[in-house]
Amino acid sequence: MTTEEILAATAVSSWTLHLDRVNKIFAGFTDEQLNAEVAPGKNRLLYIWGHLAAVHDNILPLLGIGPRLHPELDAPFLTEADKASALPSATEVRRAWNEVNGALLEGFKSFTASDWVQKHNSVSDADFATNPLRNRLAVLLSRAGHISHHVGQLALAPK
Amino acid sequence: MTTEEILAATAVSSWTLHLDRVNKIFAGFTDEQLNAEVAPGKNRLLYIWGHLAAVHDNILPLLGIGPRLHPELDAPFLTEADKASALPSATEVRRAWNEVNGALLEGFKSFTASDWVQKHNSVSDADFATNPLRNRLAVLLSRAGHISHHVGQLALAPK
Repeated sequence: MTTEEILAATAVSSWTLHLDRVNKIFAGFTDEQLNAEVAPGKNRLLYIWGHLAAVHDNILPLLGIGPRLHPELDAPFLTEADKASALPSATEVRRAWNEVNGALLEGFKSFTASDWVQKHNSVSDADFATNPLRNRLAVLLSRAGHISHHVGQLALAPK
Repeated sequence: MTTEEILAATAVSSWTLHLDRVNKIFAGFTDEQLNAEVAPGKNRLLYIWGHLAAVHDNILPLLGIGPRLHPELDAPFLTEADKASALPSATEVRRAWNEVNGALLEGFKSFTASDWVQKHNSVSDADFATNPLRNRLAVLLSRAGHISHHVGQLALAPK
């Protein structure tokens, strides 16, 4: 492997570690436990899960992997705060989450190192020309951090 | 810039974004607020801060950047759980945190793309030969995720 190939593969490997960690956590909660708040007065676990699924679904077009699979997640999990509206069921969230992450991982694994340094779709050509770090890898690393952000909260949840 | 240079620079840029975020959060708390628990019965903010500083100090030898600057942080912030012993003051933690992260960033910025794919110092030559992804970049990405883990918790703290 070349240096650029190892760098890209390391980033994808880090993503899968993040994903494995959060998958293991959600697998450890019953549907009833998913309705608990992560801390008193804070978001419910199911909301955090759906929120992660919605954010990940948005990565598909952002990185040019494909169209969104579950745009219906945006209203309950991005636009609305928790407890503002009824949430989809844990079964629905779980299914969407797995579909979205499967499609993402397939896309990530198809990217060459050169693909990773291409611009993502929410930066203009002009802005990208002045800052080549606004690339697909930056999105991957940002969203991996977003997983950890919520994993840290889930670690506080009642067991 | 070459592809490998952009990939490495993107990872370092992501690290500084993570660091800026957590620095901004800690700067928003008074020393008194740092003694609050992040959620009822959970770690205090100052403990999380010192814990991050200790983990970051350990990155210095792990990536061959230099010797540890604050090994005295390990006992209160890694070995011991919160509330098991008296903690250093917020002033001491803040100073150590800034020193450690300054040294780390200097090291990170001196690394070439090839430096990032070298093995880190807690993997054996034999293991690294079979898995070249156990490299310095993997450590950077893991520790960036660790920052986010605790930032997510800090987001729940009483304001």
